[in-house]
Amino acid sequence: MHGMITVVGTGPGSTDHITPAALRSICEADVVIGYSTYLDLLPDLLVGKEVISSSMMQEVNRCRAAFDEAEKGRRVVMVSGGDPGIYAMAGLIFEIAAERNSSIEIEVVPGIAAVNSCAARLGAPLMHDFATVSLSDLLTPWETIERRLHAVAAADFVIAIYNPKSKKRAEHIALARDILLQYRNPETPVGIVKAATRSDERIILSDLGHMLDAEITMQTTIIVGNSLTFTWHGKMITPRGYRGKYRLGEEQPKSE
Amino acid sequence: MHGMITVVGTGPGSTDHITPAALRSICEADVVIGYSTYLDLLPDLLVGKEVISSSMMQEVNRCRAAFDEAEKGRRVVMVSGGDPGIYAMAGLIFEIAAERNSSIEIEVVPGIAAVNSCAARLGAPLMHDFATVSLSDLLTPWETIERRLHAVAAADFVIAIYNPKSKKRAEHIALARDILLQYRNPETPVGIVKAATRSDERIILSDLGHMLDAEITMQTTIIVGNSLTFTWHGKMITPRGYRGKYRLGEEQPKSE
Repeated sequence: MHGMITVVGTGPGSTDHITPAALRSICEADVVIGYSTYLDLLPDLLVGKEVISSSMMQEVNRCRAAFDEAEKGRRVVMVSGGDPGIYAMAGLIFEIAAERNSSIEIEVVPGIAAVNSCAARLGAPLMHDFATVSLSDLLTPWETIERRLHAVAAADFVIAIYNPKSKKRAEHIALARDILLQYRNPETPVGIVKAATRSDERIILSDLGHMLDAEITMQTTIIVGNSLTFTWHGKMITPRGYRGKYRLGEEQPKSE
Repeated sequence: MHGMITVVGTGPGSTDHITPAALRSICEADVVIGYSTYLDLLPDLLVGKEVISSSMMQEVNRCRAAFDEAEKGRRVVMVSGGDPGIYAMAGLIFEIAAERNSSIEIEVVPGIAAVNSCAARLGAPLMHDFATVSLSDLLTPWETIERRLHAVAAADFVIAIYNPKSKKRAEHIALARDILLQYRNPETPVGIVKAATRSDERIILSDLGHMLDAEITMQTTIIVGNSLTFTWHGKMITPRGYRGKYRLGEEQPKSE
């Protein structure tokens, strides 16, 4: 029997948002590997399966364990919250496959990413061109992150911010906000979402001027509107386009 | 009885990738409204339901029909391919709600967007900061689109291109490619995906230098790697970070 690794996205955590393809992969697995926070959200799917779950094991070690098991001929599912292809485990699995020059078959089953689920709960904040930016500088120089924030703020992208804060970098979100304020008005709508679609969901609709008053943690996703984003009845809405194509001026840094 | 509108994402089209929440919304609906291309992909879910399907009706008219039906007290589902919040119907529904000052309850059920499903089929091309850019200039000035391409290319984002081509704007993708080549090498990996996860799926792994040789249509999604993206055994892989944080120079426009 040939082993294989399936990297599966379980979406925002509610079982309502796991696709049939993801569920089937988990059901058919011999071994399920994942961060315990995500595995704990799964229903009774793991009964009778070997589970390699740890909040402590490093990501790289978890991925190496997946290859070790697959090389024994087992069907391994690597569980990722959200979409495994967006700031999650798919890339590391392929990086390690290339490093080992592994012949193990690898499949990725997409999931509902935080950017999808948070947007849905906020209304329709994305809708036009958007960019995702992670504020984690563990593997990316902070200068690169700042440069990216300048670039997408100046070009009027809706911006989804991942990993806005941790104990070691509590000030990053404030620095990022200051950069965005160089290009957008303080009244620009900002959605702050934690645990979207789950029982402990928290949704806050704020703006660039006030967003730092909200509780922001490592698990929060933040969506910053573009120059046309507006709020209505508690929803955050970005229009599909620049009506009449006459609003080009709004893409320039504001000069008030 | 109170009418409501649920905007539902059906993902890439294969029923394997529709979430339980989306399926349930469709099952519970009195009326299902959608573009016939998407409705035709659904299984036997529509039996016994009133279906308002048209390839001809304008998007705005479809949304107005949703409000007309909901105001009669009916449960209306507006079906969107992919994720309704990404270049799809969620925004227009809220725009019209605001315009009508409607009190109809609106819910958005997220789906697997093209960017998620195409990335999964290509391997792990997103993984780091990415931006989506639509090349449709129907509602957005072309100058804005060009400016955005410059911004995200210079700042080394992975770039997902939506609506790359239509009969009226066959040259847009060539213009976009020329902009990207100002910042990235011709060898930069490019994934070109049509009908991801469906029986007629087409996946092409190319590069910036050769991508225009591939068939590209309105339904194609294109993912352009960043400066570190590589290919391995037919997969497109973007590393999670800038190892050692010493590769900053690659973010500058190349000067060869």
